[in-house]
Amino acid sequence: MRDFSGDTRLLALNTATVSKQWSLEQCIDGCVRHGIGGIAPWRDKLDACGAARAAGMIRDAGLRVTGLCRGGMFPAATAEAHQAALDDNRKAIDDAATIGAECLILVVGGLPEGSRDIADARQQVQDGIAAVLDHARASGVPLAIEPLHPMYAADRACVNTLKQANDMCDALGEGVGVAVDVYHLWWDPELEAEIARAGAAGRILGFHVCDWLVPTTDLLLDRGMMGDGVIDIPKIRGWVEAAGYGGCSEVEIFSQNNWWQRDADEVLATCIERHQTVV
Amino acid sequence: MRDFSGDTRLLALNTATVSKQWSLEQCIDGCVRHGIGGIAPWRDKLDACGAARAAGMIRDAGLRVTGLCRGGMFPAATAEAHQAALDDNRKAIDDAATIGAECLILVVGGLPEGSRDIADARQQVQDGIAAVLDHARASGVPLAIEPLHPMYAADRACVNTLKQANDMCDALGEGVGVAVDVYHLWWDPELEAEIARAGAAGRILGFHVCDWLVPTTDLLLDRGMMGDGVIDIPKIRGWVEAAGYGGCSEVEIFSQNNWWQRDADEVLATCIERHQTVV
Repeated sequence: MRDFSGDTRLLALNTATVSKQWSLEQCIDGCVRHGIGGIAPWRDKLDACGAARAAGMIRDAGLRVTGLCRGGMFPAATAEAHQAALDDNRKAIDDAATIGAECLILVVGGLPEGSRDIADARQQVQDGIAAVLDHARASGVPLAIEPLHPMYAADRACVNTLKQANDMCDALGEGVGVAVDVYHLWWDPELEAEIARAGAAGRILGFHVCDWLVPTTDLLLDRGMMGDGVIDIPKIRGWVEAAGYGGCSEVEIFSQNNWWQRDADEVLATCIERHQTVV
Repeated sequence: MRDFSGDTRLLALNTATVSKQWSLEQCIDGCVRHGIGGIAPWRDKLDACGAARAAGMIRDAGLRVTGLCRGGMFPAATAEAHQAALDDNRKAIDDAATIGAECLILVVGGLPEGSRDIADARQQVQDGIAAVLDHARASGVPLAIEPLHPMYAADRACVNTLKQANDMCDALGEGVGVAVDVYHLWWDPELEAEIARAGAAGRILGFHVCDWLVPTTDLLLDRGMMGDGVIDIPKIRGWVEAAGYGGCSEVEIFSQNNWWQRDADEVLATCIERHQTVV
């Protein structure tokens, strides 16, 4: 395993971590100030900054872009909604290309309004990715399927295990990979095997870290800082690196009542300290 | 599939559904009043009533006992806690035998205090069940491993898929089966196959129903009444029955802000109406 004890360059800041405090411009400046090597913008902040302007700022700052969050949300109840989802994904691919993102993260979407058919939703996801894949390939933007925790199966992502994501990648071919987020996957008894499988296929496009708090008080907005919860992050990082992953650890924390309430420089300093000690 | 449209006898009331309203005595009376065929007590209510007295009341009422909730909670941080867990499970087996329960439901437990080793917790679960299994067999009480939703992996149950439970049953042998709860398992892409596998082994000991609400506002206490959420319950019941299950549908709803606030007779009437129309 790589030694992170003195590292800041293999740490990436997902802008969600300081979502309530900073604009993208401030996030870029913050990364430079703290020596953090990578950034992963969410599209709301990217849109507020402008993709072309952001691209220049990120390049001047010497930052890697570990991913753009997010494309996806494919399952749709109507033809119009289906088309809008495809259009939005193509736009996201373009933005990812503009800022030189290493991948476009796909939060694939859950059940369409009124549906109880999760098998159909999963098929819609696969078909949706297939529909935009040529554009992604032509744009040089790998698509990263991010399996989300099963508690999001209904409303955010019906791909809930790495095995499912791997199966989907096998079906779709070149240009699609996976993002491994410890928060979503730590509980899965098949995780080690599926990480090895993903690595053997050369498709691990991202490694996201935060922690699972006990108790967790909100399904969405109560993620923990690395080290504050129960996930054995070094063990999972070991699996990911043994599978050939050599990229950044991207910190993505949604934390309504804790980290979003703190001074953003304090948040970044804490991310670095935890990156060096418990990731 | 069995026709539930005029049925009340294949419905069972898990006492958690009216946890805040009724004692066990009131639950028994309520089931009789509404014609509900089965009951599944939690141990707090059973203890308050007394197991022997409850056994007589349940017998006189002509109710099946679809399960006793709960044994389990095996993983422990100390030798004392480990022994206490085994003792408590033996006591639960005795109580289940006293009331003629069709199984003892096992909520197997999560990570011991201070642990991040979920593989070890899972091994402790298997070893714990093995340690009390002779007593269960001698008592004629099948043990039902209930896989819980992955959002409970840390603090309630580190067995989170039916595949895991099936694997554990294979390792443990006679006297151990599974409870299939749609709330915990609906998202699992391998559910149909693992239900068939459990059925082929003759080990489906219970079928629990409620619903997954969108949004879900609390990880523990915001379960929905059947039909109010996104789970395709008839599809899963079809799989369970195709696998040979002929027992009751047990309603188990934890609902702090809705069903626990209502008149218990209204809750039972609603359970019956939904049992006949959407289960």
